[in-house]
Amino acid sequence: MILPTFQASDPDYQERVRDNFARQGMMGHLGAVLAGLGPGWCEVELPYRAELTQQHGFFHAGAVIAIADNAAGYAAYSLMPAGSSVLTAELKVNLMAPARGERLLARGVVRKPGRTLSVVEAEVTAFAAGGGTAVALMLATIFCLPDRADRPG
Amino acid sequence: MILPTFQASDPDYQERVRDNFARQGMMGHLGAVLAGLGPGWCEVELPYRAELTQQHGFFHAGAVIAIADNAAGYAAYSLMPAGSSVLTAELKVNLMAPARGERLLARGVVRKPGRTLSVVEAEVTAFAAGGGTAVALMLATIFCLPDRADRPG
Amino acid sequence: MILPTFQASDPDYQERVRDNFARQGMMGHLGAVLAGLGPGWCEVELPYRAELTQQHGFFHAGAVIAIADNAAGYAAYSLMPAGSSVLTAELKVNLMAPARGERLLARGVVRKPGRTLSVVEAEVTAFAAGGGTAVALMLATIFCLPDRADRPG
Amino acid sequence: MILPTFQASDPDYQERVRDNFARQGMMGHLGAVLAGLGPGWCEVELPYRAELTQQHGFFHAGAVIAIADNAAGYAAYSLMPAGSSVLTAELKVNLMAPARGERLLARGVVRKPGRTLSVVEAEVTAFAAGGGTAVALMLATIFCLPDRADRPG
Repeated sequence: MILPTFQASDPDYQERVRDNFARQGMMGHLGAVLAGLGPGWCEVELPYRAELTQQHGFFHAGAVIAIADNAAGYAAYSLMPAGSSVLTAELKVNLMAPARGERLLARGVVRKPGRTLSVVEAEVTAFAAGGGTAVALMLATIFCLPDRADRPG
Repeated sequence: MILPTFQASDPDYQERVRDNFARQGMMGHLGAVLAGLGPGWCEVELPYRAELTQQHGFFHAGAVIAIADNAAGYAAYSLMPAGSSVLTAELKVNLMAPARGERLLARGVVRKPGRTLSVVEAEVTAFAAGGGTAVALMLATIFCLPDRADRPG
Repeated sequence: MILPTFQASDPDYQERVRDNFARQGMMGHLGAVLAGLGPGWCEVELPYRAELTQQHGFFHAGAVIAIADNAAGYAAYSLMPAGSSVLTAELKVNLMAPARGERLLARGVVRKPGRTLSVVEAEVTAFAAGGGTAVALMLATIFCLPDRADRPG
Repeated sequence: MILPTFQASDPDYQERVRDNFARQGMMGHLGAVLAGLGPGWCEVELPYRAELTQQHGFFHAGAVIAIADNAAGYAAYSLMPAGSSVLTAELKVNLMAPARGERLLARGVVRKPGRTLSVVEAEVTAFAAGGGTAVALMLATIFCLPDRADRPG
């Protein structure tokens, strides 16, 4: 996946996205970290823990999808105006290989930004001793709520 | 969603599914419980915790999807033969309303069982004081690996 | 699929939807007919023709999806206000069985109407001498453009 | 989208795919042409005709999806063994912009080939006087039926 070359309309998008990420109890509970962020793209990393596994001891699809959803959502949110709120309207994900490894990296990249709807792709790679394997591909629709604070009411 | 009237080919499917669920570190980490199970359907429940939230304090999409994926997968797995293993090939989910409430209930129902691929729908309802609200709809493709133990190698 | 019990805000929704359908060159080219319409649901029928086949002589997935997309879109459009325009933002479809038979019937049903986005399910049934078979399930996101004429500019 | 560098196991894949395409009544009825084919990728082109339109006079989503589905399916089929048959298990598509122009080009690229399931991306571009616009992104799961003739029984 090639990084996009969008311009962010909000000069403070980095702070806005990072604040938002920090307020998500779920990311802390999984142990996920915001690993990279630019205009129209975002990376979320997740180290392996036994608390994140499915029945074979690999990363659970729920963990894979949780970080891919966040990478996709924040990729789109980076391009949204200040004062807006972000929601995932829907997502579709193909799980291509067992998510086996020491850590996962999800990268979300905006394919079509929009005032209301943005189309975003995300890919999750599992890193083990032997290198990285693409384990999931996502295609998602992200919704922008203008003039809505993105924090608890 | 109406419960289906399939017959399970494996008389011990209840034990097989429940063992599998119990081996998932992720379900324990989220606090999810296998709430109901029959031939071709499965219910997973998730009580509210601050560790499961997104930025507004509601359930995170990753938590919603994790239990819907499991409800869908086990609905299909209940109809698979003894000695088989189950994988989610892909899923698509629409997040229809904020997942706000005291607990979530995900119900997966097989729409088309298959020797290799099963098509499963799942719906997630959020329960609060005022009653239940449908917050997510999922359509998933579940893969059966025959003659493969569904536990760590 | 059970028919929904929505109220249409536009008393002239039947005429609005039927006019729209009649303007679609593609529906005429396939030979599809608007077979049923109510508030929040729509049915589109497609008789078999050799021009609609894939390599085995069954209905092509493109034909199955075209009528399911329209059934879904018009189901949502029936609930939209007068003067609005309708677009499919995205759709996902599982092809569950060969689309073999004398005719197809696609039924779209709104699951969650919305001012901007509506979530719609559709199911396609193939009818042959022996009865009907569900051949496709769709889950779609339909977009409402307010105050936009739904005809060529 | 970058072309992949797979090896086809069947030296006669070009003939096998092109024969298959030629047997699809639907592609002829739409006026679609197999425009490019290599190991793991396929392009299908569709010139504009009034018979392919939706209510605004642009290409109908059904036409856009029909050629994207075929580009995805044949991309996967090019890598399948001789004597196998191909089916689309499911697909998801985001319609990102009106499909306005003189012709559409759908390009399918295999992301993960598999003995049974292949994961394929497709993108549809609309070409008009001013250049090309990406109008649709697809993520699909393609199923391989081994030892099954891919023609009418």
